[in-house]
Amino acid sequence: MTHSASQSAAQDIAFVLETLGVGEALTRLAPFREFDTATLVQVVDEAARFSREVLAPLNVVGDREGCTWQEANGGEVRTPAGFADAYRQYREAGWPSLPCDPALGGQGLPVVAQVAVQELTAGANLAWTMYPGILHGAYECVDRFGSAALRDAWLGPLVSGEWLATMCLTEPGAGSDLGQIRTRAEWTDAAHESARITGEKIFISGGEQDLTPNIVHLVLARTPDAPAGSAGLSLFLVPKVLADGTRNAVHCTGIEHKMGIRGSATCSMAFEGATGYLVGTPHRGLEAMFAMMNSARLHVGASGVGLAQNAYDMALRHAQARVQSRVPGGAPGAPIAQHPAVWRLLEGQRVAVEGARLLLYRAALAIDESHHAQTAAARAQADALAALLTPVVKAMLTEQAFLGASDALQVFGGYGYVEETGISQVLRDARIPMIYEGTNEIQAIDLFLRKIAKDGGATLSHWLSWVRSQVGEARHLEGLVGFDAALACLDEWARLLPPLLTLAQASPRAALCVAGEVMRAVHGLSMAGLWAQAALAVDGAQHAKCHAARYWLKFELPETRRAMAILAAQLTDPETGE
Amino acid sequence: MTHSASQSAAQDIAFVLETLGVGEALTRLAPFREFDTATLVQVVDEAARFSREVLAPLNVVGDREGCTWQEANGGEVRTPAGFADAYRQYREAGWPSLPCDPALGGQGLPVVAQVAVQELTAGANLAWTMYPGILHGAYECVDRFGSAALRDAWLGPLVSGEWLATMCLTEPGAGSDLGQIRTRAEWTDAAHESARITGEKIFISGGEQDLTPNIVHLVLARTPDAPAGSAGLSLFLVPKVLADGTRNAVHCTGIEHKMGIRGSATCSMAFEGATGYLVGTPHRGLEAMFAMMNSARLHVGASGVGLAQNAYDMALRHAQARVQSRVPGGAPGAPIAQHPAVWRLLEGQRVAVEGARLLLYRAALAIDESHHAQTAAARAQADALAALLTPVVKAMLTEQAFLGASDALQVFGGYGYVEETGISQVLRDARIPMIYEGTNEIQAIDLFLRKIAKDGGATLSHWLSWVRSQVGEARHLEGLVGFDAALACLDEWARLLPPLLTLAQASPRAALCVAGEVMRAVHGLSMAGLWAQAALAVDGAQHAKCHAARYWLKFELPETRRAMAILAAQLTDPETGE
Repeated sequence: MTHSASQSAAQDIAFVLETLGVGEALTRLAPFREFDTATLVQVVDEAARFSREVLAPLNVVGDREGCTWQEANGGEVRTPAGFADAYRQYREAGWPSLPCDPALGGQGLPVVAQVAVQELTAGANLAWTMYPGILHGAYECVDRFGSAALRDAWLGPLVSGEWLATMCLTEPGAGSDLGQIRTRAEWTDAAHESARITGEKIFISGGEQDLTPNIVHLVLARTPDAPAGSAGLSLFLVPKVLADGTRNAVHCTGIEHKMGIRGSATCSMAFEGATGYLVGTPHRGLEAMFAMMNSARLHVGASGVGLAQNAYDMALRHAQARVQSRVPGGAPGAPIAQHPAVWRLLEGQRVAVEGARLLLYRAALAIDESHHAQTAAARAQADALAALLTPVVKAMLTEQAFLGASDALQVFGGYGYVEETGISQVLRDARIPMIYEGTNEIQAIDLFLRKIAKDGGATLSHWLSWVRSQVGEARHLEGLVGFDAALACLDEWARLLPPLLTLAQASPRAALCVAGEVMRAVHGLSMAGLWAQAALAVDGAQHAKCHAARYWLKFELPETRRAMAILAAQLTDPETGE
Repeated sequence: MTHSASQSAAQDIAFVLETLGVGEALTRLAPFREFDTATLVQVVDEAARFSREVLAPLNVVGDREGCTWQEANGGEVRTPAGFADAYRQYREAGWPSLPCDPALGGQGLPVVAQVAVQELTAGANLAWTMYPGILHGAYECVDRFGSAALRDAWLGPLVSGEWLATMCLTEPGAGSDLGQIRTRAEWTDAAHESARITGEKIFISGGEQDLTPNIVHLVLARTPDAPAGSAGLSLFLVPKVLADGTRNAVHCTGIEHKMGIRGSATCSMAFEGATGYLVGTPHRGLEAMFAMMNSARLHVGASGVGLAQNAYDMALRHAQARVQSRVPGGAPGAPIAQHPAVWRLLEGQRVAVEGARLLLYRAALAIDESHHAQTAAARAQADALAALLTPVVKAMLTEQAFLGASDALQVFGGYGYVEETGISQVLRDARIPMIYEGTNEIQAIDLFLRKIAKDGGATLSHWLSWVRSQVGEARHLEGLVGFDAALACLDEWARLLPPLLTLAQASPRAALCVAGEVMRAVHGLSMAGLWAQAALAVDGAQHAKCHAARYWLKFELPETRRAMAILAAQLTDPETGE
């Protein structure tokens, strides 16, 4: 079933790299001069092959078997049959080292490539992808914030993927509010380099597993001298097995029975005076943790694209094979794909997936540019753009995955509700990315307050001026009505932004009541520019991308107006939700 | 957990009956003169109590245990522990006979009351409610179309609920397209009253169960002399146990493993020359089957309201108990319900549920009026209104249930994704009503082509003139901005309708591409009138219903504009989905 999903995905990623110019933009960055676009496309094809041949067949297995927690055995976890072997193949093929520093044994590929791998593997098997999911974030965190000793001891196996890693943030009383973390760290040396960690963490993906002999936990904890709130948190590296080979005092105390991603072990972890090593500066643990957030959140968005692609391909295949009612003007007994109602369901998904990719890889490119652009000013600008687009990618692409999977299930009708068909698993799996790595509501708040209001809308306006230039050019394309309406939306947004910035200052409550609509408006306006860019990059209105752009303008742009109408109403008559 | 859901529901149904005047309207119909509103409210309270005390505790049990099919035992099915006993209590309390003809031993209560019972029981336990779910439809069908002999033999146990019933429509090759049904009926008598039924049916809810000693299957089949397509189908009553006590040749050959409503046995049925009795006229089986469709589809919509209420109450309770981040202008560590983002999620659900009830009971009242209004003209008018509103109720209220459950799960954050919390079950259960009894896409086509275009928009325009009168009056209410925007929507719709009717004639394909938007527009315009009516029925802008109306106008009315913008674009530049 997923055979064609990874192929469609790889083909469309190649469009983004080749035709849309993302590949060329990368080769203008110093470290990627030698990776011509063809090489990147080859990497993507290889990741697609691995996803299709190794991971996809394990997807249903993971859902049916789930993980088992063995209390008797010191809290060990057995992952579904085949998961460990698939990881061995993944590691042996060198995938973990793909984006790592060549000086440390990595292959030095761009974030763009890493995001493509994430999209493809998560689309084929999200539960499995959760295990290596945090590996690169952990690598970045230790590489950037760890002491020389820490880097020497722990980076190598993270680059090679010999060991996997976790992020240990959440506690029963601390979810979205990390300030309430209670896990304690008591210094064990005068230099404050190591500590005993005591506390309970929950919802730790891969907290225990049988894929690697060691697991590197990155744990937020509070030292005795720390101030209250999130400003008092420090980050510690807590290995499952210490350097001398002894077992550290950290154990899995149970796993969750979840709605989806059942092959992923979601662990409760007990730290009982476990040895931990400080990463970065005391009390600035959040900073080190959040340094990897942009790429982690981008990865979640990429998972959404992969899931949506998978759901779409399953629905398409079913709709082409399933023969039902006569369609207007057609013969009786046509495939349901030919029915207008099903066409809307399918085309809506296709356009959402392809549009999502335009946004995802633009944001990934911005991260690469933020690291490697030639001037500091260019790097800062790219960093600001990446920061702006990341919450949009995370929230909107995961929502699209869930709603797209629901539309795909609808195409299956009653068959979709039966577990055998597999589409219900996609829907169940797709529900979690809207929650983890910061709920989608948190993303909207982040976008409005931190990414837009904080710099007075400067970064956004700069981005939208690019959008306007693309839309302004695309409106002259033959056969593409609708870009004028997009220009009108940009004008309307220009009118709304100043009073919205004022509202964010004057009444944060009233502003937060419509943070979700700000998210939708920014997403829609961004997509107008990206669809314009795509339409301009291809030849002629009959190209599939022009059809997709036309569909988007007609059926999806009105959603942007809807969001802006609510924003306008909120400005006239603010509601504060009290 | 569900304690408070059924109480909130009962309270709000009482509002609809008492304050909104549905109860009074009923007492103007001859058969309901003696049921004053207080009696109806009492019935609702009693149904709420039964749902809360008997059904709700079995909801999780049903999901965990599911049903088991016993091949060795002739294909019998064991339902989850407690289901059969709950049904015994339901039957002993007289619930099955509630809406039946008093001449046949029924209690003669209005459809409004029956719909309330459906809402409450389905909200507490949809899987269980599936078993008696089709009972009344089967009763109506046999009562209205059955011969005297058939009625004598089979109606009694259906009124009392001693036996349950099924609708056997779907086959592997015939889902939305009943014309493709292949089950054969061979006459066994010259009078063409009975036949041998042979064929395979799938997705039959309660096709086998251990709640009642006999099951009455209503089966669509094709006689040898029948024309092709759906016009050639006849309806047969096929009992599991024949009148002489022998087992009929119908067996359950397996049950589905489903995403939700796991306590409901979804059966594959083999008819192997089973004895069946003709219901109604040969070749007019669909007519008999569809005679019960309005109330069956209304029941599905009612289930949606029940599920949405249940999800909302669970989310509200969690949000009031869960303490997290500081809210703007507040102290740190407030319940998340006080956070604007969570407020939007919760308030959106509350307004959707209460609004859904306004629509649901208006449609139910129209069915009662269509049966019992004094003049034939009034009955016809009510029937047309019921026919118009029914697909809207079915499609929009089930979609709201699914999206509402997803919003409720979002309020739970990571906890929502864990099966233990229970909200994931609500989401999984809520996914099926969008599919069965005609997918929501089928409802949209039915609305646009059969309910609107067929009479040239007459019934709709008559309904919208009532809407306009309510909105026109409500715009003078103090403190309620937004009804002017609703009037503007009504004006816009008046401009769109004539060209839409032309499009439906000239290019059915292009029309069907936007049937979903017609559905959304009609729903939104209807809700504007119903919210106006509710606001007019209460005292002062501080009443909770006025707050809800205000929320709806601000945050939900723009969705109606979105749909109409797409309709306008389709009229300008029709897309046919080919």
